[in-house]
Amino acid sequence: MFTKVHVFRVKPGQELSSGIAHYCQQHSITSGVVIGIIGSVRNARLNFLTELPGKYVSQEYPGPLEIVSAQGSVALKDGERVIHVHILLSSGQLCRGGHLAEATVFSTAEVVIGELGWQLRRYADEYTGLNELEA
Amino acid sequence: MFTKVHVFRVKPGQELSSGIAHYCQQHSITSGVVIGIIGSVRNARLNFLTELPGKYVSQEYPGPLEIVSAQGSVALKDGERVIHVHILLSSGQLCRGGHLAEATVFSTAEVVIGELGWQLRRYADEYTGLNELEA
Amino acid sequence: MFTKVHVFRVKPGQELSSGIAHYCQQHSITSGVVIGIIGSVRNARLNFLTELPGKYVSQEYPGPLEIVSAQGSVALKDGERVIHVHILLSSGQLCRGGHLAEATVFSTAEVVIGELGWQLRRYADEYTGLNELEA
Repeated sequence: MFTKVHVFRVKPGQELSSGIAHYCQQHSITSGVVIGIIGSVRNARLNFLTELPGKYVSQEYPGPLEIVSAQGSVALKDGERVIHVHILLSSGQLCRGGHLAEATVFSTAEVVIGELGWQLRRYADEYTGLNELEA
Repeated sequence: MFTKVHVFRVKPGQELSSGIAHYCQQHSITSGVVIGIIGSVRNARLNFLTELPGKYVSQEYPGPLEIVSAQGSVALKDGERVIHVHILLSSGQLCRGGHLAEATVFSTAEVVIGELGWQLRRYADEYTGLNELEA
Repeated sequence: MFTKVHVFRVKPGQELSSGIAHYCQQHSITSGVVIGIIGSVRNARLNFLTELPGKYVSQEYPGPLEIVSAQGSVALKDGERVIHVHILLSSGQLCRGGHLAEATVFSTAEVVIGELGWQLRRYADEYTGLNELEA
């Protein structure tokens, strides 16, 4: 089960990834599931994996764009907190989703994290060239 | 933790938002997380925030479209239940997501809501011009 | 509440649906919510409902594509496990979501399933021509 469900807001002008990291630090969350995020952002940058091991392309979206959904996790790698989030952004003209690199909150970002009672961990995987879940 | 996980179906021909509201009313849910919705809809209307404070544009999609995902919350504002859902719709030709204004269920909508043991609340925010989470 | 939250990885080269089914079989999961999946895939096939009862079109996407999100459920129909997942795939050029028919994991698929303490069931519905939730 989720030992605790956290619902919090990252506020206008704040960078979304940093806002989530800050909340996790303040509340000592090291293991959890990002159940969802909705809201809106500007100046988003998403990463898209194109080749293995680990080659990404980045794309930038000035927005404003709705945050339609987000999913991911909070884990530890070598004792460091790793927050890994995929996010879907859409306006009436464009819809794209990928690995959240950065984004500035426009109106709000309502984040839901379910904390786990056991530790999620990541390790550097040679085949993918990425930090993969041990799970 | 989620004190209770509700899984229910909104049926063909019913309006999706009203169907969710009706279920929450019947089951006295005033605080929760919309964990997911999948299914299909017709005649959907989505809102996209374009300017602050609170300017939206609406777009209509006749469909049928798959409900690929949805996320959101159930909260109270001034004692009234507010259900806030962002939804992603897709066909083979089009993919758009935004604030769910209305949609008619086509085949089904399978809704999952995780009820919270504490009260989520919203308030009218001057900066965004929207009802924001107190969280 | 979710009696147990499972977080597991389907690995490169494996078929995603089969990987989820295999995990559920190994862990005797017959009732649950697919809370999320992120990662990346190649050679994905999605189904889109076009007409009732039960007419689908399929589309194939060679990818690689990010798995941006996924939602669904694990239920029983006539004693058989039915895993029903809608998934959203995106590259920098294309974004589509629908019913997951099949997909080959590219780098990883990080799957989160919340197990339920009561049994979700499906039945063959005459109107939709599909296996609908009893919920």
